[in-house]
Amino acid sequence: MRLHHVGIAVEDLEEAKARYGLLGFGVVAEGETLLELLAPLGQDTPVGRFLVKRGPGLHHLAFATSRIEEELARLKGVGARLIDEVPRPGFGGHRVAFLHPGFGLGVLWELVETEGA
Amino acid sequence: MRLHHVGIAVEDLEEAKARYGLLGFGVVAEGETLLELLAPLGQDTPVGRFLVKRGPGLHHLAFATSRIEEELARLKGVGARLIDEVPRPGFGGHRVAFLHPGFGLGVLWELVETEGA
Repeated sequence: MRLHHVGIAVEDLEEAKARYGLLGFGVVAEGETLLELLAPLGQDTPVGRFLVKRGPGLHHLAFATSRIEEELARLKGVGARLIDEVPRPGFGGHRVAFLHPGFGLGVLWELVETEGA
Repeated sequence: MRLHHVGIAVEDLEEAKARYGLLGFGVVAEGETLLELLAPLGQDTPVGRFLVKRGPGLHHLAFATSRIEEELARLKGVGARLIDEVPRPGFGGHRVAFLHPGFGLGVLWELVETEGA
């Protein structure tokens, strides 16, 4: 599996775009590792609660796979606790599934289904 | 600039290697985005203090550049607070420099000098 993107919780999307723009990260493009800037839609959302609890910062790692159900079954078989037992639509129109951060040793892991990952 | 690696603070390096091994991350290789597992050498080290304060989890983002002094000067010019005013030896023998996480909106940014980044 390869790293697909890094999720970053931000309070202000425009401010964050400008800041990462300083590093040349602008338009996101498939095929390279992406930075996903996540601004909360409300305080009682996963990203909203994350911001309240931990403040802005690194939020999750996403890994690309071409067979997401197979990977979920395999990881469940080795003890992973799944947040999403079944893939759901996510980032960029891909099917995605999150694992509990306890399994990722404090890191929220996301699987992202991509063609030929 | 491209993403060079993601730093992850871990309590037990062997446990973390085994966990990321489940995703196929084993031997690190130049040229692709790397996961850097950081176990503390002691409690009174940057990673040790991070673990005490925040627990294990995502620690920093590193960006590759072929001209680290130039990039540091440019970022300083737009208001970045630098942890390392001068590059120092780091990850994989590269010259590196860290920026204060306030400038990265809660994310610790590292610049890594690589050939032809």
